[in-house]
Amino acid sequence: MIIFSDSQLSDPALNLLQKGVAPHELLFPKNPASSVLAKSEPDPAFSSADIAFGQPDLSAIEKSRRLRWIHLTSAGFTRYDTAEFRSLAAARGLMVTNSSTVYAQACADHALAFMLGHARQLPLALQSRAASGSPEWFALRNGSSSLRGQSVVILGFGAIALELIKLLAPFQMHITSMRRNPAGERNVITPDALPSALSAADHVVNILPDNAGSRGFINAERLAMMKPGAVFYNIGRGTTVDQEALCEALKSGRLDSAWLDVTDPEPLPENHPLLSIPNCFITPHTAGGHRNESETLVRHFLENFRLFLDGAPLRDRIM
Amino acid sequence: MIIFSDSQLSDPALNLLQKGVAPHELLFPKNPASSVLAKSEPDPAFSSADIAFGQPDLSAIEKSRRLRWIHLTSAGFTRYDTAEFRSLAAARGLMVTNSSTVYAQACADHALAFMLGHARQLPLALQSRAASGSPEWFALRNGSSSLRGQSVVILGFGAIALELIKLLAPFQMHITSMRRNPAGERNVITPDALPSALSAADHVVNILPDNAGSRGFINAERLAMMKPGAVFYNIGRGTTVDQEALCEALKSGRLDSAWLDVTDPEPLPENHPLLSIPNCFITPHTAGGHRNESETLVRHFLENFRLFLDGAPLRDRIM
Repeated sequence: MIIFSDSQLSDPALNLLQKGVAPHELLFPKNPASSVLAKSEPDPAFSSADIAFGQPDLSAIEKSRRLRWIHLTSAGFTRYDTAEFRSLAAARGLMVTNSSTVYAQACADHALAFMLGHARQLPLALQSRAASGSPEWFALRNGSSSLRGQSVVILGFGAIALELIKLLAPFQMHITSMRRNPAGERNVITPDALPSALSAADHVVNILPDNAGSRGFINAERLAMMKPGAVFYNIGRGTTVDQEALCEALKSGRLDSAWLDVTDPEPLPENHPLLSIPNCFITPHTAGGHRNESETLVRHFLENFRLFLDGAPLRDRIM
Repeated sequence: MIIFSDSQLSDPALNLLQKGVAPHELLFPKNPASSVLAKSEPDPAFSSADIAFGQPDLSAIEKSRRLRWIHLTSAGFTRYDTAEFRSLAAARGLMVTNSSTVYAQACADHALAFMLGHARQLPLALQSRAASGSPEWFALRNGSSSLRGQSVVILGFGAIALELIKLLAPFQMHITSMRRNPAGERNVITPDALPSALSAADHVVNILPDNAGSRGFINAERLAMMKPGAVFYNIGRGTTVDQEALCEALKSGRLDSAWLDVTDPEPLPENHPLLSIPNCFITPHTAGGHRNESETLVRHFLENFRLFLDGAPLRDRIM
């Protein structure tokens, strides 16, 4: 079996990968990509591979006749999420898996960190030296809240949403999730039922991936449906939000605030209006990050590699 | 029944109190105190009261012959937590309750906000515009973590600890709590067993109240017992920490960081060394704060008032 890996890995992770796939052959590109999400260049070695681990180039996949399985190092899979690619994969019997399990827990932690960062007013409170009893102190305390009993709408019902729902359980919140094709899950609605859910939600957590159907999903119309004073969070993809409309909703005070781990583009250019809005809080796409991430990615791939060798169903299969 | 209230209340809360106690009589001090935690001045009206709601003056309590019940508007009760006061209360059959239920959930939320703020590196990440793949970006992602499977020691096992333990359940952490007099609870240890617990903990959450036994409890010796790279949190009282020793532990890199909602004094003077330590994060005693706090305080008092009138056991009784 030949595995082509264009994954950017730390030395310990690379070591783990080499040991884990032996005695099978591991091939690397001549010009490694610059980031986990960047696609690699077409590479001559690719055509001999049975398995690709990383972010393989679309034209290289198309040309390859041996490839049977692609394991992506990201949770998002925008460049593969097209009708053309899906039909190519189906026609060839090409399996595609992603690494959503690797990032889901850290992403859910990040979403809850945002929600509690808002509830406890951390950005303001960490800057304040207000004396007990001062007007600033009363404003901070009165601006703080508990998440208990509040309502949240989660857009996108995948691995991250499932983890987040577990973390929110002790807060006894009213949780509604939106999914394109619900399968009868409890408190899961279709986009049709979103207007009334949005109008009742204190928190709207967007975990939508980027694809033709989700681009610009959070637009002026949907922002106007939200409850006045709601908080908007994005740990999905920046392209799913109309950022101009978001700016307006924040400036007008319609939304209390926005907490974004993703933007379009990343990072935002220095003069972007979202950067100067005081109630917009942005982290630079670090939601899935965690110590030894590269090793977790390799371990997840190796688990799937063993299942693949055994002909068993793969985990995190997306096609 | 005569109720003396020196509580600092919002107008809606005061209204609620007046309606709630009617037809009983409500008396107020001539010179209201400056904050919820500040004690009031002795007041002539106090001597006629059966019930005190607020932070009544010790000498006024001593002089009063009618007083049967004190309901404190705080969770902390330092000035009443002395052998002298306890024996006076016992001799007089004076009941004392506090408002810990009012603050416990918001305090637990604040503690988890701190823990996730650390795990997701929020103070750094919210300041960063790092591009994907840059060294700064990799450092941020690798510095981030999930709380899952990590260990935490909670110092003080009261209402806040119980709430925090509920919130931490989905993270499947190893939780050990320390209590002066454990009553056979699971994973609760005495101070004697603390050294080995501290040496194994990734997180140490201090919720100790201020009293003669807790003052300076987190000293150089106990800080030195902590696991290298541990994170220290304080949402108890500032006086329970030797701040000079904490500065040293942060500067030397022994501790990863400290997240403090309480300090000694509050606020810290402008030139205090803790303020210039980059891995020390401080909020100004806002952990218990929440919207309509004053109304929650009154509702909690009124619940106890009805129990008192019925001769039923009071909630949050501390003496």
